[in-house]
Amino acid sequence: MSFNLVQFIGLVAAMLTTAAFFPQAIRAVRTRDTSSISLATYCAFVAGVTMWLVYGIIAKDIPIMVANALTLVPAATILGMKLRYG
Amino acid sequence: MSFNLVQFIGLVAAMLTTAAFFPQAIRAVRTRDTSSISLATYCAFVAGVTMWLVYGIIAKDIPIMVANALTLVPAATILGMKLRYG
Repeated sequence: MSFNLVQFIGLVAAMLTTAAFFPQAIRAVRTRDTSSISLATYCAFVAGVTMWLVYGIIAKDIPIMVANALTLVPAATILGMKLRYG
Repeated sequence: MSFNLVQFIGLVAAMLTTAAFFPQAIRAVRTRDTSSISLATYCAFVAGVTMWLVYGIIAKDIPIMVANALTLVPAATILGMKLRYG
């Protein structure tokens, strides 16, 4: 399978947008400070990522399944911390 | 074109993950409080969304182009506010 430039860009984009939320989750857990984080943003984001996961499962699309299952971990953590600490 | 359940789930997922960051951007602009927001998260997220946009343009994939162009607006706003106000 020749791995062309477009696939490489897509792979890096997926890795970045998947990994992006881990620092925010770690910061929220460590500091318990979620004051400037928007609850609406993370409610919509967790719902959206969950639906992408459902989409990936039904469509049997492994990259979408894996990327969104990974993203759901920090996103749900941030939402949980926001609900807990306000 | 029959619009089946999987496409519907994908569309709703895309709308949610695209719209999700507008409340955080509005909150950041209004309050100028970005103290508990992770700079690393938004650097990675803006970079990732930008690469998804490049991917969509090269692959001529309109939904990916539109979703990521829209997401880039609030994401870059949040990053700008974080850089400006710390």
